[in-house]
This record gives sequence, structure tokens and C-alpha cells, in this order.
Amino acid sequence: MLNPPALVATITALSDAYETALGENALTTLDAFFYEGPETVRYGVGENLYGAEEIAEFRRARTGGSPPRRILKRVVTVLGDTAAVVSLEFQREGSPRIGRQMQTWMLTDQGWKIIAAHVSLMAEAPETSHPAG
Amino acid sequence: MLNPPALVATITALSDAYETALGENALTTLDAFFYEGPETVRYGVGENLYGAEEIAEFRRARTGGSPPRRILKRVVTVLGDTAAVVSLEFQREGSPRIGRQMQTWMLTDQGWKIIAAHVSLMAEAPETSHPAG
Repeated sequence: MLNPPALVATITALSDAYETALGENALTTLDAFFYEGPETVRYGVGENLYGAEEIAEFRRARTGGSPPRRILKRVVTVLGDTAAVVSLEFQREGSPRIGRQMQTWMLTDQGWKIIAAHVSLMAEAPETSHPAG
Repeated sequence: MLNPPALVATITALSDAYETALGENALTTLDAFFYEGPETVRYGVGENLYGAEEIAEFRRARTGGSPPRRILKRVVTVLGDTAAVVSLEFQREGSPRIGRQMQTWMLTDQGWKIIAAHVSLMAEAPETSHPAG
């Protein structure tokens, strides 16, 4: 069943907490949102990371906190009882570009964890003649 | 349980079939890979689409087929029995840029369907000082 209301509320609260941790650059909190295994994938704006270790190392290698960003739109979709996707569009302060973040969450023994994430900045114009996937 | 082998094989075959349909710009086949509902989200390189209808319309509005692309790396992760994520890096013929595609699949009464997809071109340099999610 898509979108059982109680779970939509749970995942929405987790997404809110993730945004707060990102804004505070709270590294160990951010680590804990991700599934701690080699299966976790995170495609960032400028990097492709495989496994929780690479993701944690990347966070520590980059300097400065996350630039403040505003969420323009968010869609939470719960797939049954143990998986969910959070899709959102964001805009960073001072930039006109539209960012997109998609996270797939799964229920584990340690609670809900992100096992796949993809963050990107949208190209300036739609791909009218070069479809990409 | 992560990655039951039989389902990894199922999802891998679906991903192969998706790539074939994309290469052939087989519109109705591509439509059928996606969950037919308003919940489906597809972030493309240059567009953000909400709902199966918008996605189908976009495919029909863009001219020409998908430029041939080579898969550089693919990770299939099955989350239990009813959800899976396919993450892949690609490179289009004639372009040095790295593309990324992430799809979340779920098992429905009509079989496995993509309910969320995100395609992007990686920025030229890693974001060392501007984390984005």
C-alpha cells in the first residue's frame, strides 16, 4: 500500500531532521542517517560515493558547512512498510539554480536509514533533444 | 534481507531491458517501466517531473532518441522483497561528462515498476566547500 499516513509522518519527520543536521553540518548525525554498509550509494553534485565509509570520509574532507538552502517542494512516498522515497527541490541562498535531492530510505534493525541518495543541480534548460534516462 | 540473489537477477534484467528501451526510444515500453500514478517522480538532467502523465508527456515532447551511452558502473541493491534501487554511472558517446541515474523500483500487482528516478550530469569538480545534501 502506498503512503500509509503514519509512515508518511515518520518519514517526513526524518527528512526534517536530516535538513536540520545538514544545515548544522552535524557530521555524526548525518552519518547515522545513512545505512552503515558497503551497499549505500550517494551521488552528490560533484562526486559519486560508494559505501558508508566513502560517504563519511567525503563529509569530513569538505570544508565549511552546507550553504543555507530553501526547500521549494518535497514529495514523500512510502512504498509499503519498509521502504520510502523522499524527493525534493531546493534553492541555495544567493543562487538561482534549482537543486534536486532524492533519498531512498529502508527500515532496518536500527530504524529507518538512507541506502541511496542522489543530489544534483538541474541543467539550465530542459533536454529537449538529448534524453538521458 | 539485502540483495536476495534471485531478485538481484530480476532487477538486473529489468535494468538491462530499460537501457535497451531507452536506446531505442521505445516510448510505450519506457512508459510501462514507470508506476502509473501521480506519485511517480522523475528528475531529469534539465527537468523535474511529477506523476506518470508528466513523464510520458515529456518523453513525447522531446525530439530524437537518446544519445548512445555506455554504462561505466552499476549497482543493484534489493531492499527486502518489494523494493530495489539501481544506481549507475554513464557516459554519452562524444562527451567526457559523467552521468548518473538512480531508480527506485517497487513490486506492484503489475510487476516491478519505477516510482522514483533521478538523472543528472555530475559537476566538473567535487563540491569541497559547498555540500549539498
